[in-house]
Amino acid sequence: MIIDCHGHYTTEPKPLTDFRQKQITGLKDPAAAPSPSSVKISDDDFRASVEGNQLRIQRERGTDVTLFSPRASGMGHHIGTAATSLEWSRLSNDCIHRVCNLFPNNFIGVCQLPQSPGVSPENCIPELERCIHELGFVGCNLNPDPSGGSWTAPPLTDRYWYKLYEKLCELDVPAMVHVSMSCNPAFHTTGAHYINADTTAFMQFIQGDLFKDFPQLKMIVPHGGGAVPYHWGRYRGLAQNLNRPPLEEMMRNNVFFDTCVYHQPGIDLLTKLIPAGNILFASEMLGAVKGDDPTTGKPYDDTKRYVEASNLSAADKAKIFEGNARKVFPRLGPKLDKIAAARK
Amino acid sequence: MIIDCHGHYTTEPKPLTDFRQKQITGLKDPAAAPSPSSVKISDDDFRASVEGNQLRIQRERGTDVTLFSPRASGMGHHIGTAATSLEWSRLSNDCIHRVCNLFPNNFIGVCQLPQSPGVSPENCIPELERCIHELGFVGCNLNPDPSGGSWTAPPLTDRYWYKLYEKLCELDVPAMVHVSMSCNPAFHTTGAHYINADTTAFMQFIQGDLFKDFPQLKMIVPHGGGAVPYHWGRYRGLAQNLNRPPLEEMMRNNVFFDTCVYHQPGIDLLTKLIPAGNILFASEMLGAVKGDDPTTGKPYDDTKRYVEASNLSAADKAKIFEGNARKVFPRLGPKLDKIAAARK
Repeated sequence: MIIDCHGHYTTEPKPLTDFRQKQITGLKDPAAAPSPSSVKISDDDFRASVEGNQLRIQRERGTDVTLFSPRASGMGHHIGTAATSLEWSRLSNDCIHRVCNLFPNNFIGVCQLPQSPGVSPENCIPELERCIHELGFVGCNLNPDPSGGSWTAPPLTDRYWYKLYEKLCELDVPAMVHVSMSCNPAFHTTGAHYINADTTAFMQFIQGDLFKDFPQLKMIVPHGGGAVPYHWGRYRGLAQNLNRPPLEEMMRNNVFFDTCVYHQPGIDLLTKLIPAGNILFASEMLGAVKGDDPTTGKPYDDTKRYVEASNLSAADKAKIFEGNARKVFPRLGPKLDKIAAARK
Repeated sequence: MIIDCHGHYTTEPKPLTDFRQKQITGLKDPAAAPSPSSVKISDDDFRASVEGNQLRIQRERGTDVTLFSPRASGMGHHIGTAATSLEWSRLSNDCIHRVCNLFPNNFIGVCQLPQSPGVSPENCIPELERCIHELGFVGCNLNPDPSGGSWTAPPLTDRYWYKLYEKLCELDVPAMVHVSMSCNPAFHTTGAHYINADTTAFMQFIQGDLFKDFPQLKMIVPHGGGAVPYHWGRYRGLAQNLNRPPLEEMMRNNVFFDTCVYHQPGIDLLTKLIPAGNILFASEMLGAVKGDDPTTGKPYDDTKRYVEASNLSAADKAKIFEGNARKVFPRLGPKLDKIAAARK
């Protein structure tokens, strides 16, 4: 099977985005604040939102299952209060759950957390537990900068985050480190903020002792690990200069890069330098970069093609397409087995 | 000749760093504020600071001339006021000038600008002019984030910066986009902030029309262009999605990446994807990453070795080692010719 571990619901039905707009208006004008229960989206609406999009692309490209989470730029943790964030996260996660229920062989849920700047991440635990226990999700997205581009939160290695990490370990759930929209005009959201966040998080992991404290904790650094593989010599050297463990040792059971790198030379670099056991297949299809690459005539985000064309062995490709996902998302295996059985 | 376009004075004599410490103390206790004229550094001190360091390495590695500027992390534009920054910049640039005068065949000056958060970059013009006209410098370092990690300045494409750009064009001087130390605990200075700044600036250039307004303006994005070459497909796709010109067209006469990428696969990616006319040789020797790479037994920052081992033609290597530097730094040519003549 081919598991795409990084897909966002970028084709969400209009009533959901309408709610968000009204919710934001309601922050200034409480009389205009909508109730989440007022959002009516039919099963047909959900089906229509993915049929010609993610489902079509899965069929066309020959991928099997997408780990599906709310639109990353839409998380907007900087907007309003923790209560705003919780209301929006619950509704967003419920929509993911509806899609997963309609297409249980195609989508498995990953949740948005109700983070809020300056609020302890411990506040995310109830929604995390609801998503794992009640909605059957297998992972979460963790925003290292809930401020949306001001970077006011402590590093991910700080004890500030530890209560949440304890719960992640207890639930056997990994986190994908993923920022949301940038409201800082210096940072383009998908062209700078996303990639910078990946690079920043990885350097934090080099500096800290997070995985000594949480040997079970698994962090996915998306977008191919930001700038890290291109500057692998720099990071190896910095770790050495700082008397930190070698990168492969630090990463081994804890840090994973995805394959959201939208050209062959980038994937070739990634797969050449990073151990195959630390790479997860992902495309973020219908995400940051849409359309066809004129140099190949194929979609930029058809990363399956690049991984297949890489120099990796068949065994390593199998790890990247499926085996590693089963390892990093321990709750995924039984679901995949059920899907495989259903398809027989 | 081999021109290293990116070298900082990371071995500065102690009286200079002592002054800075006292200057910072003086911000709270004006009685403790030192006078720049109190800083006494002899020619022998300057000689000793580079003899066993940058000069030795030039000889060992076979490079000829280093474009030399004050320590980047030491610029500290966020400290004190514009007056603080001007005093520190003048003194720092004067020290570069002293080294260049002692070793005119080895070092050519690039200046630090007296930027200060919230202060118009126009304030940098007098010091820029002094460095170019009186000290014989050929370039400057421009900090896109004088706040030191809060990113409060407008994008580099904003008219906020235009008066300075007008002067750069008038003087025929390029700018290297280079941040200084991070005082944000989320960002490691050399492991995150530097690389993020490169990525951020490049995305700003994609979004804006800066080079339509300033066809003569030349910007160097150091550290191999940050994350950009690794994500070249992403940036090509984003430019396409945003209806912006193709990257090669946007870069052609205006944006240049240096070779401060500290391993062979990274340099191979850079030289494969980026036109050779847009790459400048640089090592940032004795900079962010010191020591030997155990996988090669050679220093991480000996980037000449990687460029030489790349698949580039001899003509392209000559461009990267010398030709492009002459083009990007128009004031450099006559100085290089003089050095070449002196060596005959």
